Amino acid sequence: MGLVIPLEDNKKKASASIEPLLDLVAADMQRVNELILSKAGSDVAMIPEVANHLISSGGKRLRPMLTLAAARLCGYRGDGHVKLAASVEFMHTATLLHDDVVDESDMRRGKLAARMLWGNQASVLVGDFLLGQAFRMMVDVGSLDALDVLSTAATVIAEGEVMQLSVAKNMSTTEDEYLAVIRAKTAALFSAAAEVGPIIAGGDRGGRAAFRSYGTNLGLAFQLIDDALDYGGSSADLGKQVGDDFREGKITLPVVLAFRRGSEAERGFWRRVLEKGEIADGDLERAIGLLRSHHAIDDTVERARHYGAVARDALGAFPDSPHRSALVEVIDFCIERAH
Amino acid sequence: MGLVIPLEDNKKKASASIEPLLDLVAADMQRVNELILSKAGSDVAMIPEVANHLISSGGKRLRPMLTLAAARLCGYRGDGHVKLAASVEFMHTATLLHDDVVDESDMRRGKLAARMLWGNQASVLVGDFLLGQAFRMMVDVGSLDALDVLSTAATVIAEGEVMQLSVAKNMSTTEDEYLAVIRAKTAALFSAAAEVGPIIAGGDRGGRAAFRSYGTNLGLAFQLIDDALDYGGSSADLGKQVGDDFREGKITLPVVLAFRRGSEAERGFWRRVLEKGEIADGDLERAIGLLRSHHAIDDTVERARHYGAVARDALGAFPDSPHRSALVEVIDFCIERAH
Repeated sequence: MGLVIPLEDNKKKASASIEPLLDLVAADMQRVNELILSKAGSDVAMIPEVANHLISSGGKRLRPMLTLAAARLCGYRGDGHVKLAASVEFMHTATLLHDDVVDESDMRRGKLAARMLWGNQASVLVGDFLLGQAFRMMVDVGSLDALDVLSTAATVIAEGEVMQLSVAKNMSTTEDEYLAVIRAKTAALFSAAAEVGPIIAGGDRGGRAAFRSYGTNLGLAFQLIDDALDYGGSSADLGKQVGDDFREGKITLPVVLAFRRGSEAERGFWRRVLEKGEIADGDLERAIGLLRSHHAIDDTVERARHYGAVARDALGAFPDSPHRSALVEVIDFCIERAH
Repeated sequence: MGLVIPLEDNKKKASASIEPLLDLVAADMQRVNELILSKAGSDVAMIPEVANHLISSGGKRLRPMLTLAAARLCGYRGDGHVKLAASVEFMHTATLLHDDVVDESDMRRGKLAARMLWGNQASVLVGDFLLGQAFRMMVDVGSLDALDVLSTAATVIAEGEVMQLSVAKNMSTTEDEYLAVIRAKTAALFSAAAEVGPIIAGGDRGGRAAFRSYGTNLGLAFQLIDDALDYGGSSADLGKQVGDDFREGKITLPVVLAFRRGSEAERGFWRRVLEKGEIADGDLERAIGLLRSHHAIDDTVERARHYGAVARDALGAFPDSPHRSALVEVIDFCIERAH
């Protein structure tokens, strides 16, 4: 058998943080937050109520921070990046509002989902309003290239959500098919958020491609770790609510791996709980037991590490700088959440 | 620092072989080889001369073996898989003939390239002839689904070659852009070769998707290892001719990584030799030194391992069988070539 020898690598792992990025973009982010509050306003009172319920619920706002940092790293000195960053966060918020309706979710970020308080119709329409405001802010900035990248992302995200519908409750989903879903659903917005930084800074083709690659691979790693965390991550004592994906019948990578590595009896179990949705007491525990015995969670984290490594190399061609270090550290931060 | 502790994993690595697959498909492969010789025939004498020069030059015929083994694994009992396998090999041969013209290569598999003996025109046109014969054999089999998959692959391969032209001599190529090239140029044919197995066997959607994923990821791993081998692989004493990609100015993953991880002076070196093509004595040695000092070859092999792992899991849902074991062992065989 193999030996696991924790060396100094462990120390590095414990220390990766999002703080350096937060510090670098703090002033710009303050303006993004003000813009978000102002652009969520409307004379139709229900709109700011619904929007602010989610906006004020304490997301990390990682995506707009990528835009801000990427623009600054590429030497941008103007203030169009603030509007683009707010657009990115609105696109994300709109997606969450719509997702909760599609998934019939009750909770979001530890609070009742907007649809539980204001209904499905309001959630769909306020999402559309935010998407509209996002596009208006982009148009305001006036960069056709940035508009192209962000509007393409909006389309791709919607395609990804539709793809997810067709993948849901289908245990024959392959890893590649699942990857295609999260590439569209999650990675496309990370990618666009990062790429509009060099675009507005007037960066060259190479700089745009580098940030596109960074964003895409960071987004893939981020989503895979999210999937692992939904089953408790690689540590047994996480203390986080687990099993949301399981209860919603979502096929994520840990399940794809455990299903393919399991016995026929185990596959019967997965089909019953995820395809038919017949979940009984103890099934989540059994699922987690199977995931662990087939190393499905650890290997999901391992796959995330691969994408993290690609993201890291993507930024390699830029000179060393605080912004670059902070963006690289965010990769490790995202991956270490699983421990 | 970390410790490397060789355990029994090492023994397994030394033993992965293509032999089990060769043995399982030997009888079918005999018929594929006869079909290849017969379908390369023509009253126009130059056609079989040019075609057989390459056909008899000792390729491993890995791609048609994938078709044969996949069809058998899925329970196929007819003989249409022999024609499909021959089609796949013809598509591959046509690509090689055209590639050597595009790359202006002198050598192929240790022999003079066909274009050096019969000229560029003959190489292009005999490639077209083989592609035509490939389609005729597919039509003969009569599966529209198989025709769809293989003709799509033919288009994607051509797109990949054009993509490679735009990537060549461009040091700002990202890992993702390079991946897109080899996904089209190499992995698409591996994927189609594997997928037509379940198709002709009447397999379901899940079986097709599993083999598509197996082929794609095996193809990616295969190409990345090829790229690593072109710089001597991870072992220093390989005894293989190295540096073809380097001399042709090809940007492959080892170079993408070393460029991004290097100093400004090192980047100047890469730009001079690969973008401008100004290669002097000792430059290949310097390139290999830089690749090693930045772990670019090892990490290329590491990236290949990731795709190998995905390919392995892709076949997990099929019951254990000699064919499945042989196909999984081929993954390890492809990756271990780098050692």
